[in-house]
Formats: sequence, structure tokens, C-alpha cells
Amino acid sequence: MPETLHVTVWNEFLNEKSKPAAALAYPRGIHEAIAEPLRHLPGVEVRTATLEEPQHGLTQEVLDATDVLIWWGHSAHHLVADEVVSRVHRRVLEGMGFIALHSAHESKIFLALTGDTGALKWREAMDRERLWVVNPSHPIVQGVPEHFDLPVEEMYGEPFGIPEPEQLIFISWFSGGEVFRSGATWKKGNGRLFYFRPGHETHPTYHDPNVQRVLANAVRWARPTVRIARQCPRVAPLEPPSV
Amino acid sequence: MPETLHVTVWNEFLNEKSKPAAALAYPRGIHEAIAEPLRHLPGVEVRTATLEEPQHGLTQEVLDATDVLIWWGHSAHHLVADEVVSRVHRRVLEGMGFIALHSAHESKIFLALTGDTGALKWREAMDRERLWVVNPSHPIVQGVPEHFDLPVEEMYGEPFGIPEPEQLIFISWFSGGEVFRSGATWKKGNGRLFYFRPGHETHPTYHDPNVQRVLANAVRWARPTVRIARQCPRVAPLEPPSV
Amino acid sequence: MPETLHVTVWNEFLNEKSKPAAALAYPRGIHEAIAEPLRHLPGVEVRTATLEEPQHGLTQEVLDATDVLIWWGHSAHHLVADEVVSRVHRRVLEGMGFIALHSAHESKIFLALTGDTGALKWREAMDRERLWVVNPSHPIVQGVPEHFDLPVEEMYGEPFGIPEPEQLIFISWFSGGEVFRSGATWKKGNGRLFYFRPGHETHPTYHDPNVQRVLANAVRWARPTVRIARQCPRVAPLEPPSV
Amino acid sequence: MPETLHVTVWNEFLNEKSKPAAALAYPRGIHEAIAEPLRHLPGVEVRTATLEEPQHGLTQEVLDATDVLIWWGHSAHHLVADEVVSRVHRRVLEGMGFIALHSAHESKIFLALTGDTGALKWREAMDRERLWVVNPSHPIVQGVPEHFDLPVEEMYGEPFGIPEPEQLIFISWFSGGEVFRSGATWKKGNGRLFYFRPGHETHPTYHDPNVQRVLANAVRWARPTVRIARQCPRVAPLEPPSV
Repeated sequence: MPETLHVTVWNEFLNEKSKPAAALAYPRGIHEAIAEPLRHLPGVEVRTATLEEPQHGLTQEVLDATDVLIWWGHSAHHLVADEVVSRVHRRVLEGMGFIALHSAHESKIFLALTGDTGALKWREAMDRERLWVVNPSHPIVQGVPEHFDLPVEEMYGEPFGIPEPEQLIFISWFSGGEVFRSGATWKKGNGRLFYFRPGHETHPTYHDPNVQRVLANAVRWARPTVRIARQCPRVAPLEPPSV
Repeated sequence: MPETLHVTVWNEFLNEKSKPAAALAYPRGIHEAIAEPLRHLPGVEVRTATLEEPQHGLTQEVLDATDVLIWWGHSAHHLVADEVVSRVHRRVLEGMGFIALHSAHESKIFLALTGDTGALKWREAMDRERLWVVNPSHPIVQGVPEHFDLPVEEMYGEPFGIPEPEQLIFISWFSGGEVFRSGATWKKGNGRLFYFRPGHETHPTYHDPNVQRVLANAVRWARPTVRIARQCPRVAPLEPPSV
Repeated sequence: MPETLHVTVWNEFLNEKSKPAAALAYPRGIHEAIAEPLRHLPGVEVRTATLEEPQHGLTQEVLDATDVLIWWGHSAHHLVADEVVSRVHRRVLEGMGFIALHSAHESKIFLALTGDTGALKWREAMDRERLWVVNPSHPIVQGVPEHFDLPVEEMYGEPFGIPEPEQLIFISWFSGGEVFRSGATWKKGNGRLFYFRPGHETHPTYHDPNVQRVLANAVRWARPTVRIARQCPRVAPLEPPSV
Repeated sequence: MPETLHVTVWNEFLNEKSKPAAALAYPRGIHEAIAEPLRHLPGVEVRTATLEEPQHGLTQEVLDATDVLIWWGHSAHHLVADEVVSRVHRRVLEGMGFIALHSAHESKIFLALTGDTGALKWREAMDRERLWVVNPSHPIVQGVPEHFDLPVEEMYGEPFGIPEPEQLIFISWFSGGEVFRSGATWKKGNGRLFYFRPGHETHPTYHDPNVQRVLANAVRWARPTVRIARQCPRVAPLEPPSV
């Protein structure tokens, strides 16, 4: 039997306390809406952490005990301490899964991991989003239909400032006329990175069964295989000096 | 001054002789519609070749004198001789550009180059296609706007059976609700491959200035740097045997 | 408990009957040397197939019951029937793992899957090969040391005519002075492809515990997630026609 | 005629003033050794900048006038101001070429661009390095032989902490028994990144004609096509709201 998979769901957790529409969609916070269905997965243990906890809830001890970190942030990226960002970044490179959700495209940690702009177009309107699976054999989309719709979502449009995905998983179609690379994966050091677009704070996206299925698959896909601290060792030659 | 770039435009050239709508859109054949604007580029020489010519117009001599081959085929993929396919394939791997257009996704040569299925969804209806540039610094999209529309086009939908693109250039949005990776590039041996989706035979797509701009950029991007015949040489060691 | 993983090991099985050195290294055939340690893995069932069996042992029934196919071929690539190659190719694209070993770089099926030349330099001499792991978090190298040596192996040298690997796993150092991309992976349709270099027929490479570990990891990594037959469906629009 | 290409060569320029062996190899500084042969290229203008200049010589004005920035740093990465690193990073993403040389693998800017560890093994000894071209059609290796040797170089060994290269260009063989991905390219935003390994400060590497040819090719390959400032615009829908 595989070992327990330890997931930490991080949420900024500000919008749900200040915006009525967000409070309505996620009365216990987005982190709880994300964590709850994961808790039902066999072999998965889930904790949560939020911005206003000391060290944003992401101490070295918590990260040491985390296999996969899910990140939701939106309006307070600048309030995340650089020291915590560096700690998470280092932990990913040593070997931890990282799942960046929605407006995490502009979070310090996503920008640090990708080295890119994270830029995109956006619109909060009445757009309908349809996510198309472009890579049907990928573990992240098992049990997910060929496409699924989210009746109302914030629109994100291309060009999206990311490194060329190693595997592109989803492309979104928006009723307003745009497209977006909504699911993409990369290897980062010994860790794995998955960006997944949907999840505006005022829409019930994380209650959608397909979205929940994607996240359930993603935490298992992102499980680390190793943990290797960064080192640049000076080494002796393996071969005798040539004459 | 750079050397002349030699482009060959290959067209099945059957639809234009049998379907009135195709004859109307391309009275001199799709190959001529593609070739004509390329002929106005400085330093570019263009010839054409079609299915019904001997060896489909693609003798070894023609391929030896070709830097970039553009391919349009649709209903007669099975009539292209395997020997010609192998010759073109070998020529690409030695170092030739290859631009696969529209239904070339199912041509023998595209399938041989990609090793994949080329499968997709399709529909001939009144779809509008909007091509979004996802890689604005790529040479193929210089001078092309952020997005451009084709008022009526055949729809191609994901999943598209291709290897993960090395560079994804365009994603199409269709008014009927689908998306498609409409422009993608790969290195193939010492050659370069570009797939470009639009171009149904009954729509005036190749008269569109943005489409023409993409093709003008693409032939220059696909220009080969070397020509190296396949070899698997037995070689002597560079180092003395270790004791 | 995961379902049984069905592995088929295919071997040309000619050298072992004609070359004394190959018979000495692999008295029961290379396929048996590869299959034997896999048979000890929990949840793995292994069968073998060879060139001289009817249809080379690769009937549709066998392929239907195969999750991962391992391929060793060397001097008789041209004797493999095109029909069988097409059948295997189609099965990979539908969703089957394929592990190409050593001189399979020139097999019809590897060339068909990659669309490339498979070309390389080679030398049968007294080279020592050292395989360096360049991707330590990849599932295929779990339990494999940072590098391991094969005291005598055939040399393969760059440039190697393959598509840019999606994940590069191993680079080999040869005592004679060459290097080689010795382990690389690609997605092919719904299947997964792994090329693994070592394994000359007259050296005891497949008895090496590190090589066996790589193969044990690789069959599990290559397990398919889906099986989807190729189709190009005509589909109705999901959206109403715009006015 | 193409426009002038503006290259800036940045050098830490400390070793040449403190280590006799470095002073001997590069009496006018590594930056001058790199700049000098580039100055002979038609259509190329070269300036230099060093750590101890105000803002390390990399003001916004200089970067605005730079198409391609070459970076050599070694022992003083920590002395490079974060503000300058951010400025360079932003400029690359807007559209600038960046060529990271040798120990720049640990520079703040390379780590920021790649998001990875940059970790590797190393040894300053009497290793001989042989660089093998693995991608012979790439513009960066035109005119470069299949392999070339540097009689004495610092050794860098795998695993190298970088994102999977988009194009791998060189693999190095070291006489001491290691291998290394010595030349690799990535797209970063609208810019292009090339890492090139050789260049220890006490060895005459930058006087080597093959190394000079690689750098001459690389600055032309890295020429930007666009300059687009980062923006995340809110946009209006292109399609009317659906009913």
C-alpha cells in the first residue's frame, strides 16, 4: 500500500471575508471547499494554511510534512513574505508537488517557479468557460469527460506568459471569444508543477465535480518521488588522469 | 545577401476541378493561390507540383532543389505513392522545411513525420474561426495581429493527435464551441515542420492577408541550415584504451 | 490493488542462435533474460514473443492483452512484416507502453513512432559505458544510483536522430570519448515511449541489477491509462449559430 | 540589410584583477576577450559592462539599447543588486536575448529566469572537455565541427538543475568521467535564453575559435523579434453575450 499523501491547501482567505459574493460561494473559505473532497480520497491527508496565520501557515515544519501544496491567491500576492516564497520554492525544487490555481498566475511563487511574466487578458463578466481535454491519456484527466463547461467564470485570455508547457492538458474556450491554456505541467527541479485555471472567488467552481476530479487526480500525479537538497559538490575524478 | 530560398507548393488539385465551390474560391488551384503572394517576396523562388504530374511532381531533382515544401492534400491522401512519401520524408530529415496545411493532418507524409494519429474532430458548417497568437515573439507571427478571424471555415476540434508541440503558435476559437492547436512547430531531423490549420478548399482562406503573412513568415522560418544524408558510421575511438 | 500489468517482451532471437558470444551471454535468449526479473515483480505478468513465431508472436490478440511491449531487435529489422509494425504502432497510439532497447533505434517500429532517422555512431570494441542520471526524480530511475557503469558495451555516439526528448533521463559517457542520450521518453498518442540504450547481444548487460531496475521501473511508468481507438468524428456544434 | 545588432557583454571582472592565472589568460578582462571577436562581425555593435560600474553598468538606458546580453559571473553573484537583476529579467521577458556563460549557472539572473537550482558537480583539475554537437541543424552550431576539444577546463557534471531544455545543443564529455548538457536553449517570455558551459577564468577558452564561433552564432540567434512590456489588460468580450 502506498504511503499516505500529505496535501496542504493554501488560501489567501481574504475575499471570502470581504466580498459577499465570495462568502456566499465559499462560506468556509475556498481552502475548505478544495480540501473537503480531497479528504475523502483514500490515503490522502489534508491540512490547510492561510495568509494571516503566522508565516502564512507555511513554516519549514509544515513544508517538510507536505507532499503537494495547492495555492490559491488573488488580491494579496504582495503580502506574501519573500522568505516564505523562497522556502516554498526551495521545497518544490527539492521534491514537492505544487498546484497553482487561477489567479496564482500572478503569485510570487508561480512567477519564481516559471521565471516568466504570468501575464494574460481577463474579464469578470458573464462568460461561460468550456475546458477541452487535449491530452486524454494524462493521469490528471482520468475520469474527466472530453470537455466540461463552467456556466459562469472569469475569463482569462491568451497570450499567457508561461514557459512552453511540457504537457498541455486543457485549453479553454470562452463564450466571449477567447481561448486559454487552462491546464499545463512542468518539472521544476525534483518537483512537479501543475497550473489549473478555473476558480474565481465568486463562482461555485470548486464545487464542480469535474474540477474536483481534476484536483483529486492532480495531487496524486504531483506526489514527489525523491527529496534532494540543493548541493553543488566538488567531486574527485572517476577516471585516472590521462597521460 | 542571403541565398535564394526555393519553395515548392504541392497541391492535390482535385477538388478545384470537381467541386464548383472550390473552383470558385480557387480558379487556378489552391497551389497557385498559395504560390502567388510568395512569388512577390524578395529572394524567394516558387514552383508548384500536383498529384497528377508524374511522381506527383516531386522527383528527387525537384526535392534536391527545394528548401521548403508546402503541402495541401485532402481527399486523395491514399493516392500519393509510398515511394514519394519516403523520398519527401528522407529529404525533410536531411534538412528541408515542411509546411503542412489544413487536411494535410491526415496525409501520409504528416503522419510519417509525426508518428502520431493526426486525429481530430471536424465539421463543415458555418463556423467562424478566430486564431489567437499564443507565442508573439515567434518569427512566424511577426506582423500578424494578436488575433484574426476567418469568417467561415471548416471546424477542427481537439483532441488533435500530434506529438507535444515544441512551440505552439496559434490556438483557434470556433464559434460552434471548439478549440484547436492551429499552429505548431517541431524539429524533424535536420528539418523543420510547421502545421497550420486553416484552408478549407471552398473558403477563400488563402486570399486572407493574415494567412498570407503567416505563410510568408513560415517559409523563411523553415529555411534549412544544413543538408546531411542519414548515416550510421562505425567510428574509431577518440581516446586510447584504458588499462 | 492495481490491476495486473501485462508485459510482452519481444526479441528478434537470431543472434543467440548464431553467435557463440551471444549464446554464452544469453543462453535462453535475450527475451528470457529481460523477462525473468520482471516476472518477480508483484502484479506483473510477462510473456515473450519472437521474430520466427507466426506474425512474430504479435497477433492482435496478443497486443490487445499487452499493456507494455519491450522490443529488442538488431540484425533483422527488415524481416519484421510491415503489417505487424502497423499493428504495433496503432496499438501504441491507442494507449500502450513501448520500450525500445539498444539497436531498436533502427527498427521499423521505432522509426515509425519517432518519424526521425534513428541515426548514430557506433563501435563494437572494449568501451566502458557510464550512465549518468540527469533527471533524478523521474520514476524510471528510482533506486538507481547517480551513475552506474557497464564494464564492456557497444558504443553509441551522438548525434542521435530522435525528436527532442520530452524528458531526458540518462546520458552515457564512453571511455572511447563519446556521449549519448541513453534514456529518453516521449508521449506517442495515448501511449508512452521509452528508449533505453544499453544491451549489446554479446555483453551481459541484461544481467546487470541497475539495468534490471530501470526496466522494472520503466514497465510501471509506461502502463497505459486509456485505450482509445483512432477516430476523426464529424461533430455537431455545441453552440447555436451566431446571427 | 538587417538592422544593427546591439550586444552588451557583462563581466564580473574581479578574478582577472586578483588571480594571476586569470590575469594571464585574460589580461584585458574576460569581457574584452568575448567582445573583441564579436566586434568584427558585420552589423554587430558591442559594448561591455562590469560589476563595479554604477548599477553594474546595466542602467535602463543601456538595457533599452541592448538586443542581446552576455553574462559572465563567478565569485560575486551575491554582490549583484536585486534591482539590477529584476531590471534585466524584465527586459529579457519583454524581448531580449540572454546568453549565460559558465558559472552564470549560479547567478541570480539565471536562477530567476529558469526558476530552478542551477546545481551541478564541479572540479577544477586537469580535465579535458569535449563538446559534442547533438543538434547539427541548429543555427548556433553552424560552422562548428561535430565535436571540439578544450584541452583543460573546469569540469561540470550532471545532474544539472535546469528546466528540460527546449533544444539541447551540446553535451560535454570530460576526461575525468562525467557528462554535462553544455549548451541548451529556452524561450523566456519574448526573449531567448542560451546557456553555454565552457569558460573558466584561468583557461584560454574564450580565445578558442570554436567557442568564438558559437558565441558569434548565438548573438544572432538570440536577436529579439519584438519588445512588448508586460501587461494584464482587462478586455471587453469579442462576442455578444449568449442568451
